[in-house]
Amino acid sequence: MGTRVILSGMRPTGRLHIGNYVGALMNWIRLQNEAEAQCYFMVADWHALTTDYEDPSQVESNIEAMVMDWLSCGLNPEKVVLFRQSWISEHAELALILSMITPLSWLERNPTYKEQINTLKDKAISTHGFLGYPVLQAADILLYGATHVPVGEDQLPHLELTREIARRFNFLYKKSVLTEPQALLSPVPKVLGMDGRKMSKSYGNTVYITEEEKELSNKIRCMFTDPHKVKMGDRGHPNPCPDNPTGCMVFQFHKMYEDSKNAGSREKTCMEGTLGCSPCKKDLYDEMNAALKIFREKRKTIKKEQVAQLLKEGSEMAQKRASETLRRVKDALGYR
Amino acid sequence: MGTRVILSGMRPTGRLHIGNYVGALMNWIRLQNEAEAQCYFMVADWHALTTDYEDPSQVESNIEAMVMDWLSCGLNPEKVVLFRQSWISEHAELALILSMITPLSWLERNPTYKEQINTLKDKAISTHGFLGYPVLQAADILLYGATHVPVGEDQLPHLELTREIARRFNFLYKKSVLTEPQALLSPVPKVLGMDGRKMSKSYGNTVYITEEEKELSNKIRCMFTDPHKVKMGDRGHPNPCPDNPTGCMVFQFHKMYEDSKNAGSREKTCMEGTLGCSPCKKDLYDEMNAALKIFREKRKTIKKEQVAQLLKEGSEMAQKRASETLRRVKDALGYR
Repeated sequence: MGTRVILSGMRPTGRLHIGNYVGALMNWIRLQNEAEAQCYFMVADWHALTTDYEDPSQVESNIEAMVMDWLSCGLNPEKVVLFRQSWISEHAELALILSMITPLSWLERNPTYKEQINTLKDKAISTHGFLGYPVLQAADILLYGATHVPVGEDQLPHLELTREIARRFNFLYKKSVLTEPQALLSPVPKVLGMDGRKMSKSYGNTVYITEEEKELSNKIRCMFTDPHKVKMGDRGHPNPCPDNPTGCMVFQFHKMYEDSKNAGSREKTCMEGTLGCSPCKKDLYDEMNAALKIFREKRKTIKKEQVAQLLKEGSEMAQKRASETLRRVKDALGYR
Repeated sequence: MGTRVILSGMRPTGRLHIGNYVGALMNWIRLQNEAEAQCYFMVADWHALTTDYEDPSQVESNIEAMVMDWLSCGLNPEKVVLFRQSWISEHAELALILSMITPLSWLERNPTYKEQINTLKDKAISTHGFLGYPVLQAADILLYGATHVPVGEDQLPHLELTREIARRFNFLYKKSVLTEPQALLSPVPKVLGMDGRKMSKSYGNTVYITEEEKELSNKIRCMFTDPHKVKMGDRGHPNPCPDNPTGCMVFQFHKMYEDSKNAGSREKTCMEGTLGCSPCKKDLYDEMNAALKIFREKRKTIKKEQVAQLLKEGSEMAQKRASETLRRVKDALGYR
């Protein structure tokens, strides 16, 4: 088996939270350490416009914050190619070419399209660009000849669309120019936010991966525990009282951060009522703070100017590969 | 009034016929000689893919033939910028950006879109790229800051769409970045083909502007004259017989090529029956041949390699301007 070529990207939403880390970045870092993988990781800043064209004013600072977080988590620009989509004109060029051969019906039946049109009712996203974002995504992937794309189960239809577009191109122009990528299905554990809903900036329930100690402490203090918990004095209960950790967010986070050998005893003492919520939260703070401290410390060593320079160098490398693919695509069309 | 900036383009359909010349090229040549106009004339080769993506194999030779004809007609690359759309990545980039802000409804209501979907039933053109071609067209025009675009009456809705997209961009990003172009409404005389239908390659009724003598002679010989014409012997009529030039294609072409002072006498002698169709066609041949000879002779002086070189130089000039606009567009978005 030859080298796997991996393409993945993130929309520049700014500072990363634990959900982003567990859901994608941990996987990226695992992939970068595979000797057999050449990874291309992209700042998907054109994609940011598909839903947020009305106010892109934060994109630039979001990119900076996000890439600093990538590096803080251990993404290593010596091992992977980090680049910025909008700096590589080939993305727009290949997307334009592919849009010519992509039937509208393929895009209209895209389940995410229908879902988002319904979800984002307050935004006027029924635009030509939004309908076409799977075409742009196909261009992103196909430009690098990616053999594998890390996706969650829910993104499989998108990847299938990329594969269909590649097949259609190769069929129409009778040349095997575009590589059909395989899904790298990774279990994406759903990280819940401090309030029990999915962790997401729009819910305001996130913990940033470089959260400062004070904010971390505040956020943990405000976490809700077992919603059925009986507080001291309620119905004459003593405190600490017997508790049920199942619905408790603090307990969920312990599961992620605690040394696994302690997990059993925490559940036991909680249920017996000998572990109060306050010390339990203090434990969580210590565990999480130790984990996030590594990122925070790393982040302090990274200068903003470095980010721009890294993206510039990475984008130059990426463009070399992208332009070779575009050349082959144009050759297949018979275009000079 | 400052300099007018003019943008126009043609799809690369190959050798030009008289309809192309009278309908567009004559106008281009008039514009190039205006001291106050800076003209950008484009080989619209991305647009060729919107309807003909299934077989683009002729595009390259069509471009060569078309540009040779441009030069044969007197288009002067020292006075105008001749360029090739697909060589300037900014067209795809700006089209991508503009597609993000263009509501699908604007495109779906485009009358030409509906019409073409109905007309070209044998082609699978219901693609994302075909729906979006007015966005690409807007990018073509807006990239050069065109103040004026030569259009026929039927293309006014397209230009209005370009103006709407420019306004929307300027409104959203609170900067007057994109110039709303004005229509340069030129009367586009409809040139009929040898069979009386509109002159068009798909009808096979064209006369090429550099038609060789023998082909020209053949084509004129086969032209039909008055469909109600009574032939020698019919109902005992003598020949030449009184005729009616109104529906006669030969007469239509005389109107274009004959010295206007002869026009009256031709009509008269035709109606009197003293002018036979055969000598009348011979006259037409002489007139047309004299006109087309100029183009033919000019064409012989142009080398194929020159075309590639001219387009290269022109495209470099065009790209300079296009990239400045794209820079301002990205600045308005807040993109580095």
